[in-house]
Amino acid sequence: MTQRQEALKGNITSAMRQAARDEFLKPEEIQKGIAKGRIAIPFNPLHKGSKAIGIGKGLRVKVNANIGTSADYPKVGEELKKLRFALAAKTDAVMDLSTGGNITDIRERILTECCVPLGTVPIYQAIVENKMTPDGMFAVVEQQAKEGVDFMTIHCGVTRKTISQLKKHPRLMEVVSRGGALLMKWILENDRENPFFADYGRLLEIAQKYDVTLSLGDGMRPGSIIDAGDAAQIGELKVLGELTKMAWKEGVQVIIEGPGHVPYDQIVGQIKLQKKLCFGAPFYVLGPLPTDVTPGYDHITSAIGGTLAAYAGADFLCYVTPTEHLGLPTPEDVKEGVIASRIAGHCADIAKGIRGAKEWDRAMSKARKRLNWGKQIELAIDPERARAIHRKRKSKEKNVCSMCGEFCAMKISSEALQ
Amino acid sequence: MTQRQEALKGNITSAMRQAARDEFLKPEEIQKGIAKGRIAIPFNPLHKGSKAIGIGKGLRVKVNANIGTSADYPKVGEELKKLRFALAAKTDAVMDLSTGGNITDIRERILTECCVPLGTVPIYQAIVENKMTPDGMFAVVEQQAKEGVDFMTIHCGVTRKTISQLKKHPRLMEVVSRGGALLMKWILENDRENPFFADYGRLLEIAQKYDVTLSLGDGMRPGSIIDAGDAAQIGELKVLGELTKMAWKEGVQVIIEGPGHVPYDQIVGQIKLQKKLCFGAPFYVLGPLPTDVTPGYDHITSAIGGTLAAYAGADFLCYVTPTEHLGLPTPEDVKEGVIASRIAGHCADIAKGIRGAKEWDRAMSKARKRLNWGKQIELAIDPERARAIHRKRKSKEKNVCSMCGEFCAMKISSEALQ
Repeated sequence: MTQRQEALKGNITSAMRQAARDEFLKPEEIQKGIAKGRIAIPFNPLHKGSKAIGIGKGLRVKVNANIGTSADYPKVGEELKKLRFALAAKTDAVMDLSTGGNITDIRERILTECCVPLGTVPIYQAIVENKMTPDGMFAVVEQQAKEGVDFMTIHCGVTRKTISQLKKHPRLMEVVSRGGALLMKWILENDRENPFFADYGRLLEIAQKYDVTLSLGDGMRPGSIIDAGDAAQIGELKVLGELTKMAWKEGVQVIIEGPGHVPYDQIVGQIKLQKKLCFGAPFYVLGPLPTDVTPGYDHITSAIGGTLAAYAGADFLCYVTPTEHLGLPTPEDVKEGVIASRIAGHCADIAKGIRGAKEWDRAMSKARKRLNWGKQIELAIDPERARAIHRKRKSKEKNVCSMCGEFCAMKISSEALQ
Repeated sequence: MTQRQEALKGNITSAMRQAARDEFLKPEEIQKGIAKGRIAIPFNPLHKGSKAIGIGKGLRVKVNANIGTSADYPKVGEELKKLRFALAAKTDAVMDLSTGGNITDIRERILTECCVPLGTVPIYQAIVENKMTPDGMFAVVEQQAKEGVDFMTIHCGVTRKTISQLKKHPRLMEVVSRGGALLMKWILENDRENPFFADYGRLLEIAQKYDVTLSLGDGMRPGSIIDAGDAAQIGELKVLGELTKMAWKEGVQVIIEGPGHVPYDQIVGQIKLQKKLCFGAPFYVLGPLPTDVTPGYDHITSAIGGTLAAYAGADFLCYVTPTEHLGLPTPEDVKEGVIASRIAGHCADIAKGIRGAKEWDRAMSKARKRLNWGKQIELAIDPERARAIHRKRKSKEKNVCSMCGEFCAMKISSEALQ
């Protein structure tokens, strides 16, 4: 039985207990959230050694790191290094988006080492291995489910109708989702409906059998802030809402993917709309990026948009690295991206009053006040980097940093007030 | 006459015209904003070669970069390099916070090279040069005004009353403002009122004579999210509101400084409160940082808080560098800090509908759609970094990047839809 089927029966699984422990919640709260569809635990029992994490309402914001080869960088070694960097930076989930090299082998290596939920976009394997028929696509989905993939992005909402909405209201960037573009091309070339939409029941069967959480993809997400919130994007979101209800009926867990490039003033509205149209299903956002002009710094831009999105209710942040829009990330970029998204998530967690979030900050402030540098570094989101900077720019004065030296405000005010 | 005195008479100065040109506004709009106190142009006529920029309501969000020596890094050469990095990264203003070496000499060198408004915190010179008497403090203010400093942070709101509020409601971090801590110590040790508060008229005379914009400092800003919005902080803000009205009466331009460390859910409220208590005066925020746990990444955290603050009405963002809370920044850190704050400002500008803001993004999206890499790099907020990443991670495929290679969504969707 899937986590959802168990939850609907009122059963508490060990995965629910594990997820609850991490959040300082009672297992019943997780079970009820899953039953209502507001929480998902992407946890394929065939993925050995993976951790059960809850994604959804009332829980700590989770972060996903995308890794994976491309034709230009097809080596598994670098991807495994990225995986290790992402895990060391404490990502909550990983997606393998490989499109270069032997991607089944690569995924197997990643799955074995990956101790957090692993997601994929099966259409990538279908295109790389030339399996772009309905049977081919479903076969890939089932193959990956059997291997233990915990969640899968499936662009079920790229349909003849949403494509016609796109054509009717042309946009600057057309389709910037790789999976979305591949499916749109297939639909137009074959003059047939998207198999994942036309034969959605077949997808649900596989998802139910292996308890693969469906991450309903946003093939029509805006790729420019100018395009945000247009007919194609909202049309697709409505389709995803209908598909969510159908999945829930079959005991399948669902996450909804979202934009993308969105101006800051539209982010809150878009999150609220998603939550409404998709009946409170967990929302997984890529960014959002509130400006298009920052290649090289899109991890920062993404953290800006991600914090507001998470504060407004987004549950799962897909990281963006500094190389976004420019090239495939290196392991160092992966680390940078995970940390930036974790900062966004943590800022939102504090603001939403998520249990335990503020205590980390309280401990840091206490260490800072005591000028306890060892503790400050230990508590830093990236102790390694904090230590390196502090050492490199050390002060000759005792206990203070080189920013103010003897004029340390903390030291002066402690003395003045004692 | 000061810009404010001119504005009150209905006169349009060349500084107002210059500021208006930069914003695609009419000079009258700037003049009216200054007359109402909602806009300031920090523009000391004795600062030769400086540019007039407007800070305030309806204008593009401006960014300030703090540079300056400390006892541990007293060399002017490195500070001049930081100045060049900050200007190259397109900061709108610079503050020289030097406390190491011969700070008058250092400031002179910086002023000569600095083609944007320069600010200082005169109390730093007073403490370094052992001039901590009322006369000594005012003498430093006048000396710096004569040299051409455009705006000065003066912590007039650190008073016996606000210190008593601090003592009555103890906080985790006490006073984290360096100038605030120095003045608090002086007040408590001498059992006297803050000279900048007790003899505020004397300060206004100097500010009026040289048209120095007063940046009323937030000595009681919270240094931990746990302390945000407490009695001392809000008590000081009320004092600053009263002082704002007094300054305006004397024709002196005013900016109000704000926090600091503030949880994300309190940022909007704090900005609205400042605007109310200080009668719409321009608001200059340091961060705000919505979490305390990110030393090494505080430029990102600051961009997260700064965007929300600016969207809610903050006008001027003081950058934070990656070395904040750890040590004095290097020139590279200065660049990183300026870019992060510019991203925050630009995201807010787009969201607020500031004239011209979105056009940059439109141009970038068009270049992206056309796979025009030269144009994308030229339009990037940091072309140098965008070029370096793109080159380092180049694709063998023509016209695409190594992220997707042949599976470029833009290429596929263009082909599919043509």
